[in-house]
Amino acid sequence: MFTLLRTHIEKRVHLIDEEFEVISKFFIPKKVRKKQFLLHEGEVCKNIGFVNSGCLREYTIDNKGSEHIIQFAIEDWWISDPNSYLSGLPSTYNIDALEDSKVLLLEKSSREKLLDSCPKMERFFRILIETNFVATQRRITDSLSTSAEERYLKFVKTYPKLIEQVSQNHIASYLGITPQSLSRIRKELTQK
Amino acid sequence: MFTLLRTHIEKRVHLIDEEFEVISKFFIPKKVRKKQFLLHEGEVCKNIGFVNSGCLREYTIDNKGSEHIIQFAIEDWWISDPNSYLSGLPSTYNIDALEDSKVLLLEKSSREKLLDSCPKMERFFRILIETNFVATQRRITDSLSTSAEERYLKFVKTYPKLIEQVSQNHIASYLGITPQSLSRIRKELTQK
Repeated sequence: MFTLLRTHIEKRVHLIDEEFEVISKFFIPKKVRKKQFLLHEGEVCKNIGFVNSGCLREYTIDNKGSEHIIQFAIEDWWISDPNSYLSGLPSTYNIDALEDSKVLLLEKSSREKLLDSCPKMERFFRILIETNFVATQRRITDSLSTSAEERYLKFVKTYPKLIEQVSQNHIASYLGITPQSLSRIRKELTQK
Repeated sequence: MFTLLRTHIEKRVHLIDEEFEVISKFFIPKKVRKKQFLLHEGEVCKNIGFVNSGCLREYTIDNKGSEHIIQFAIEDWWISDPNSYLSGLPSTYNIDALEDSKVLLLEKSSREKLLDSCPKMERFFRILIETNFVATQRRITDSLSTSAEERYLKFVKTYPKLIEQVSQNHIASYLGITPQSLSRIRKELTQK
């Protein structure tokens, strides 16, 4: 149950068995059925979740009732609303499962204890968040400076595993385009 | 010269005088004149910069030659291309000064030594990057789910100091709209 998490952490910091045994005790395993929610808008996000299997998405609903996908999370990824998790303020996002999933949850108070008791985890989270920050900055750059077709091609190249797990409608929502536009782009790419 | 940096760090972690004395030695002060570059596209980003005074911007140039501002940095903010800084790959961004500025530079190898010698700075950077990550995630959400007018109003509310330091053309570039659209939005807001 914790094998993937250990490999994931050890890509950033080296751990001995005794250290990982302590670390793993802070995580709570949870099964999330397809369409089940891990977080509802208006609730405080109490956990960050490491995805052991399956696929989840984080989305917001705008004033007109349209859904916008902010993030996907498949095996070996994390999901949460970091703003709500860190500030304790109600979330403006929803997190639900796109397929039956298994996650390892880390509560805020547990993470604080973990960070105090294990400095290597302080380093792990610093490195993890730096990587995530780079990815979000890249996404902002792409949203400002590239066409929808370029963003789609980049998405396919960057997340080949994800393409197999999520629908075209969800990818369109993530890219900030209509399903019709994505369909047209895919058709044009096939013809090229 | 280091007073602002110390206050900035101490908002996240407490330091004693001896600790800050060690920390400050890792930073190199640099003056950047208006229009001078701190980073050119194609170079490796060797530093992260803490802004003591002035204003800088980070931007990219798309295939059509248009500039897109990714980030501003005024007093008490950081600026760098984290992707290039962390990976050692050439940057796709430019960083230049919008007015005469003073920055404190932290080289990659210096930061690694600093993180190894002072665990509190590991915590400091973890907290700093978490905050930045939250802000970039919020920006992605806004770009997907809010109108240009809402984004402009939010920008004014969130960064009141910045509004005084950067031109309307730069704000339009940051918001991903044309200067003409921003001008129309501001006119409409005045009439409301």
